[in-house]
Amino acid sequence: MTANATMTMSAVSERERGAGDGLNALFRPESIAVLGVTNTPGTVPHDIFRNLIDGRFQGVVYPVAPRKKHIAGVRAYDYVLDIPDPVDLAILVFPGAVCDKALAQCQEKSIKAAIIISAGFREIGPKGAKREERLREVASVGGMRLIGPNCLGVINTEPGVRLNASFARAMPDVGSIAFLSQSGALCTAVLDYAAGRGIGFSKFVSLGNKADVDEVDLLQYLAADPQTSVILMYLEDITRGRALMKAAREITASQENPKPILAIKGGRTAAGAAAAQSHTGALAASAEVCDGVFEQSGIIRCSSIEDMFNTAELLANQPLPKSDRVAIITNAGGPGVMATDAAIARGLQLAQFSEQTEAKLKRALPSTASLRNPVDLIGDAHADRYSAALEAILDDDGADQVLVILTPQSMTDISSVASTICGLKDRAAAAGKTLACSFMGARDVADGVRILQEHHVPHYILPEWAIDAMWHASWYRRWKEREISDIKSFDVDRETAAAILHSEPDGYLPEPQALDVLAAYGFPVVRHGLATSADEAVEFAEELGYPAVLRVVSPKIIHKFEVSGVILNLQDADQVRQAYGAMCDNVLRHISEEDLLGILVRPMIAAGKEMILGINRDRVFGHMLMVGLGGIYVEAFRDVTFRIVPIRESAAGKMIRELRTIRVLEGLRGEAPSDIPAVEDALKRLSQLAHDFPRIAELDINPLIVHPQGQGCHVADVRIRLDNNEIPAH
Amino acid sequence: MTANATMTMSAVSERERGAGDGLNALFRPESIAVLGVTNTPGTVPHDIFRNLIDGRFQGVVYPVAPRKKHIAGVRAYDYVLDIPDPVDLAILVFPGAVCDKALAQCQEKSIKAAIIISAGFREIGPKGAKREERLREVASVGGMRLIGPNCLGVINTEPGVRLNASFARAMPDVGSIAFLSQSGALCTAVLDYAAGRGIGFSKFVSLGNKADVDEVDLLQYLAADPQTSVILMYLEDITRGRALMKAAREITASQENPKPILAIKGGRTAAGAAAAQSHTGALAASAEVCDGVFEQSGIIRCSSIEDMFNTAELLANQPLPKSDRVAIITNAGGPGVMATDAAIARGLQLAQFSEQTEAKLKRALPSTASLRNPVDLIGDAHADRYSAALEAILDDDGADQVLVILTPQSMTDISSVASTICGLKDRAAAAGKTLACSFMGARDVADGVRILQEHHVPHYILPEWAIDAMWHASWYRRWKEREISDIKSFDVDRETAAAILHSEPDGYLPEPQALDVLAAYGFPVVRHGLATSADEAVEFAEELGYPAVLRVVSPKIIHKFEVSGVILNLQDADQVRQAYGAMCDNVLRHISEEDLLGILVRPMIAAGKEMILGINRDRVFGHMLMVGLGGIYVEAFRDVTFRIVPIRESAAGKMIRELRTIRVLEGLRGEAPSDIPAVEDALKRLSQLAHDFPRIAELDINPLIVHPQGQGCHVADVRIRLDNNEIPAH
Repeated sequence: MTANATMTMSAVSERERGAGDGLNALFRPESIAVLGVTNTPGTVPHDIFRNLIDGRFQGVVYPVAPRKKHIAGVRAYDYVLDIPDPVDLAILVFPGAVCDKALAQCQEKSIKAAIIISAGFREIGPKGAKREERLREVASVGGMRLIGPNCLGVINTEPGVRLNASFARAMPDVGSIAFLSQSGALCTAVLDYAAGRGIGFSKFVSLGNKADVDEVDLLQYLAADPQTSVILMYLEDITRGRALMKAAREITASQENPKPILAIKGGRTAAGAAAAQSHTGALAASAEVCDGVFEQSGIIRCSSIEDMFNTAELLANQPLPKSDRVAIITNAGGPGVMATDAAIARGLQLAQFSEQTEAKLKRALPSTASLRNPVDLIGDAHADRYSAALEAILDDDGADQVLVILTPQSMTDISSVASTICGLKDRAAAAGKTLACSFMGARDVADGVRILQEHHVPHYILPEWAIDAMWHASWYRRWKEREISDIKSFDVDRETAAAILHSEPDGYLPEPQALDVLAAYGFPVVRHGLATSADEAVEFAEELGYPAVLRVVSPKIIHKFEVSGVILNLQDADQVRQAYGAMCDNVLRHISEEDLLGILVRPMIAAGKEMILGINRDRVFGHMLMVGLGGIYVEAFRDVTFRIVPIRESAAGKMIRELRTIRVLEGLRGEAPSDIPAVEDALKRLSQLAHDFPRIAELDINPLIVHPQGQGCHVADVRIRLDNNEIPAH
Repeated sequence: MTANATMTMSAVSERERGAGDGLNALFRPESIAVLGVTNTPGTVPHDIFRNLIDGRFQGVVYPVAPRKKHIAGVRAYDYVLDIPDPVDLAILVFPGAVCDKALAQCQEKSIKAAIIISAGFREIGPKGAKREERLREVASVGGMRLIGPNCLGVINTEPGVRLNASFARAMPDVGSIAFLSQSGALCTAVLDYAAGRGIGFSKFVSLGNKADVDEVDLLQYLAADPQTSVILMYLEDITRGRALMKAAREITASQENPKPILAIKGGRTAAGAAAAQSHTGALAASAEVCDGVFEQSGIIRCSSIEDMFNTAELLANQPLPKSDRVAIITNAGGPGVMATDAAIARGLQLAQFSEQTEAKLKRALPSTASLRNPVDLIGDAHADRYSAALEAILDDDGADQVLVILTPQSMTDISSVASTICGLKDRAAAAGKTLACSFMGARDVADGVRILQEHHVPHYILPEWAIDAMWHASWYRRWKEREISDIKSFDVDRETAAAILHSEPDGYLPEPQALDVLAAYGFPVVRHGLATSADEAVEFAEELGYPAVLRVVSPKIIHKFEVSGVILNLQDADQVRQAYGAMCDNVLRHISEEDLLGILVRPMIAAGKEMILGINRDRVFGHMLMVGLGGIYVEAFRDVTFRIVPIRESAAGKMIRELRTIRVLEGLRGEAPSDIPAVEDALKRLSQLAHDFPRIAELDINPLIVHPQGQGCHVADVRIRLDNNEIPAH
C-alpha cells in the first residue's frame, strides 16, 4: 500500500483491516516511548511514566521530554527520533494542539502503535474534531494503530509484559477478565472497586474518542487472547453497529473458544427521537432496541457496574449452569425467602430434590431444619451441616446451581464453613454445578469471605446478587445452546415492489402503493380500490363486499383518524355513498382538492387480536424489525421486541414469545389461540422486504389483525416512509 | 381485671391494649433475669448472658441456673423466685418444652416482660403451636408482654440503658435507625453489614414467632421513641393487616413527629391463590397487593437490604427532598451518564440551572468542563472545583437534591474533596437541599468515604444507589404532602342490595341478581330481562333495542364464553329467536335443564375502552379494591392497582393514574379522552359496596366499557362470589 493511496483512504476502508492488526504492539510492546513526560509528580504526564516503571514493565521505556536530561532517574530524549533503538509503542501526553506533530515523528520512527492520553479533541467541538481527523491521517500513513485520544490508557497484566500504560493509581491483579470502557474516569473507579473485591484483570482498555481502535477491534483481539475468558464493556455511543454484532456473535457463540461478553450501555434514556412519526420510530429510540441488539449478539446486558462484576465473577470462576434449577442452602430463613423471591422473579426454578437427597438431609440435619429447597440448616448450624447439605445436593441431578447463604450467628464457625465450601469446590466443578456463596454482613464475615475469594468461589454480600448473576449466566447458556436456523427467502414479486419503492419521492407512500408493496411481498392484504367519486366507491363496495370501509388517501394526511379520514362498518350502497360525501367534505377542510388522491374502499376485516409490525432504519444498526401489541395500546404498554434485519427463521417465533401479549395470543381461559404462525410469516416477509430495500426508513403495519389459528391475519393499516438520506453502509 | 377474666380473654381482645403498653420493661429494664443460662461459651444460653455484661448494661443482671453457683463470675440463682430483688425483664433460653413452667415463675415474680429466645414452638408444627399457645396464656395472666419465642432478642443502644439482650456478636453503634425483623438470622447479617458501613441503631428487635408483641405494637412504641427517626422492617407474614396500616399511617403522616418507615416483604412470589376463580383473586395473590398496602400506609417498599439501608442513611441524615429535581456533579462522564439514566428511569428530574449558576460554573471550571447538569468537572478536578460547583448549585433554587460523584484519578485529592463536601454540609442543610455522595471504588476512596461517614454525609459505592435512595425519599415526601380527601358516601339503595346479598347461598350470584346489586349501588348497568322462552327473549329485545345480546344464566356456568353462553350483535327478532334456540341447545350439552335459569337479554353496549374493576377479600387485609386494564389483556399485562377498602375520594383517581393504561384513557394521538371520572365514580361505589357487605368474597366487573368523556361507562359483565367463611374481623 503506497503512502499516497493510504492518504486518501476513507475511514470505512481503514476499518477493513483484519482482526486485531497491529494490536500486539499496543498490548505486548517490547519498547515504549512516552512523549511529553514531565518531572512533576501528581500530573498525568509524570504519573503515566512512573506507572510503567512502578508496574514493572518487562521491556524498556524511553522518556521523551525536550530539554530534560532525565525523568525519574531514567535518561530522557529531546525527540522520539533521537532514541537509538527501535520502539514498538508510543504514549502521547503532549497537549492536544501539538499531538499531531509528535505523532508524525512516531510515524517517521516506524512505531507501530500509539496511545494518545491527551484531551482536547472531538469532545471539545469542531476544532478538536479537526485535530482528531489529523491524528487519524498521520497514523494511517504508516498503518499505525491508535488508542484514544482522550483516554486513561491501556493495561496488560500478563506476567511477561506487565504494561500499565495508564494514569490509574495501581496495577490490578492478574485475572481472566478484560474490561473496555468508553469512559476513562469510570476505569479508575472500576479498578479500585475490583481491587476491593479481589478481582483481577487480563486486559484493561480506556477507549477514549475511538479515533482508530474501537470496541470491535478490541473484541476481535480479545477473542484470541488466551489470558481472557470474560469480556466486559461500558459503551456510550456505538458507531459500527453491525460489525459489533458480528464480532460479538463470533465470540459468544464460538464452538471452540466461546467467551461471554457483558455490557452496560450508557445513555439509554436519552430523549431524541420523540419527533419520530411512526410508532416503530418512537419505540426504536428506546432501551428496547439496545436489548434487541444485545439479545441477537449474545451480549449479557448488565444494569450496573456491580451487576456486571457480580456476573463476571461467576462466569470467570464457575461452569455455565446446565439448567435453571437452583438449590439454596441457608442458616437463616429470611435470606432464604429473599433469595427464593429473587429467583422466581427472574424466571429461575427452585430445584426439587430427589428422595435420596431428602433422606440424606434428614439424617444430617436436626428435626427443626427444612429439608426442602431452600434448605434451612437453622441458625446454630456449624460447618458439618453445611458440608452434609452441600454434598447431598451436589449428588442430586435435579439441581444444577447451588447458592450457599450464611448469616453470622454468634455460634457460627464462619471460617470453617468457608473452608468446607472451598474443599467441595472441585467436586462441584466435576459435577458441572455452578456454585456461589453469600456470607451476609461485613466485619464478622470478612475472614470467611477472604477464604472464598482466595479460592475463587464467587461471593456476594446479598443473596439477590448471586441470583442475578446466576440468571445472567443461565441466559447466556440458553443463548449458546439456541437452535440456529436459516434465513427464510420467500418467493416474492420483487420487481413490482422495486418499481414503486424506487420511483416514489422521499416521504410517505400513498396507502394504495404501500399496500401494493406489501401484496407483492405476499402479505395478507385485503382487496381494495381507489375511488375518486361516490359512484366509483359504491361500485368497489358492491364488488368487494360489505360491510365496507372508506379510508382517505392523501400525501398530506398521515394520521387519518385525526381528520375523520376513516369510516368503518358501512352496510350498504347508501351508507357508502353518504359516507363518501361526508368524508370528502370533512377532509377538504384540512387539505386542498389536489392533495386528495381519492378514497380507498375495502371490506371490513373481521375482529381479531391487534398486533403491530414495524421497521425502523437506525443510523447505527440499520433496519430494526419490531413486533408487539398493536392498536391503541402500542405506546402505553411498549410491549414490543426488536431485532436487526435480516432475522433467522427461529427469531420470528422468539420475538413473539418474548412479548407479554403472547399469553393473549395463545388463548386465555378457553379462548381459541390466535394464528401465531401467520404473524411469524409476516415478520419474516417484513425482514426480507427491509433487507431488499434500504430506502425504507420507517414502516408501521398497525394493526395487523390476527384471527384464530388457521385463519391467518390481515393488514388493516400500513405506513411506509422512504428516505434516501442516512442509509447506513454495512 | 381479675385473673379469671383474663384467662378467657381472646387473642383479639388482648391486642386491644394501648400503644406500647408494657414495652418499656422490654426496652428499658432496670433489672434482668436470664433463665436457663449455662457456663459454656459459644452456646446461646451462655452468649446471651455475656452479651448483656459485655455490652455494659446499665442495670443489674441475675443469672438463673439451677445447681450453678455462678455464671461468668456472677452469683447465680436456682429459680427466678429466689432472686431477692424485683425484676423487670426475663430472658428465657430454656429448652422450648419447659419454657412455660419458667414463664409461670416469672409471672409469679411479677416480672413485666419476657424475651423468649428458645425455639421449638409454632415453627415446628402443631405440637409447638400448642406450647406457644400455653406461653401466651401464662403471660396474659399478669399482663406480661412477650417477645418471641424463636427469636434473636432485643437491643437498645440508648446510652442510659445499653441493652444487648440478644445472641448477636456485638452491640451496634448508637444511631437513629430502628430495625425490626421477623427473621432472626437476618438480624445478625444486618448488624454485621451495618457495622461495615458505619451505620448505628436506636432499637433492634428480632420478632420471632410473634406470640404476643408484633410489628404493630413495636411501631406504636417506636412512634414515641425519641431515639428513633427512621424505622426499618423485614416482614414475612402479616397477621393484623388493618392495624399495621393504621399504625404505619399514624407514624408516616404524623404532623408533629413523622418518621419514615421502610419495609421489605419476604415471600412476595409465593404461589397459592393460583386456584382463585376471579381475575381479581388471581392478581390479588401477588406483589401488587403488598404494593397497594404499603402505598396506602406511606411505607417505603425496598427491594433488598442494600436498598433499605441506602435509603435509611439518606432519610436519617438529610432533609427530605423539596422536589424531584436532582443536580449531579461528577469528575467522570460515564458515571454521570449512568446516574442520569437511573434518575430518568426512576421518574426524577434533572435540575435546570439558572443563568447565574451557569455563569458561576463557567468562571470556576475549565473550558472543557460541562456546565449543564450533570456538571462534569473533568478528570483532573481537585477539591476547589468540587467546592465551586457545589456552592453554586446549593445557591440555585432549581435544584433540591445534589449527588456528588468522584472517581479516583491519579491526581484526585480524594480526602480533600471529602472534607470540602463535609464543610458544605451545614450550608446544604440550611438551604434544605438533600445531599449524597458516590465515591466510586474501594481501596483508593476508603479514606474519603470514612470522612464522609464520620460527618454523616450519605455515601454510596454506586451513583445508581444514591439515585434509588433519592427516589424513595422523593416518594415519601410526595406521600406526606398528598391531599387527604374524605370517603365519599353515595346515596344508595342498600336495602335492595342487602336483600339479595344476605339471602343468597355461598357461591356465585346469578347474573341478574349481581346486576341488581350493582344497580342498587348506582352502577351504570344496562337494562335487561331474563327470558325463559324464545318468545320472551324477542319481547325483551324489541323493548330494550337492537343490536341485542344473549347471555346464559346458570349457577353451574362461571365462564360463559367457554360454553358459547354469550351471543352478541343480534340485529332483529329473527336473529334473537334463532340465537336463543342455538344457545339453549348448546349449553344443555354442559348442564341439566333445571340448572338453566334462563337467558339474559340486553342491548349491545357501544364499543369503548375495556377496564376491570374488582374486589377480593384478603384473609389479612380484608377487602382489596382493584382497577386495571380489562378484557382479554388483564392477566397478560397485570396493569392493575390495589387499595384497601374503603378508599378516600382522591384515591380513585390515583389508582387509575398509576396504570400504564392511563395513556390510552387520556387519548393518544388525537383520540378523544375516555370518561375517567365515570370510572372513578364506579370505583368509589365499589368501595362502598364492599365495605357495606363483608360477605362479598370476590367481585369482578370485567369489562367495564368506558366511553368518551361525558358519555360514561357501562358494566358489560359482573361476577360476585359470596362466602361467609374467613371474614376477617377488624
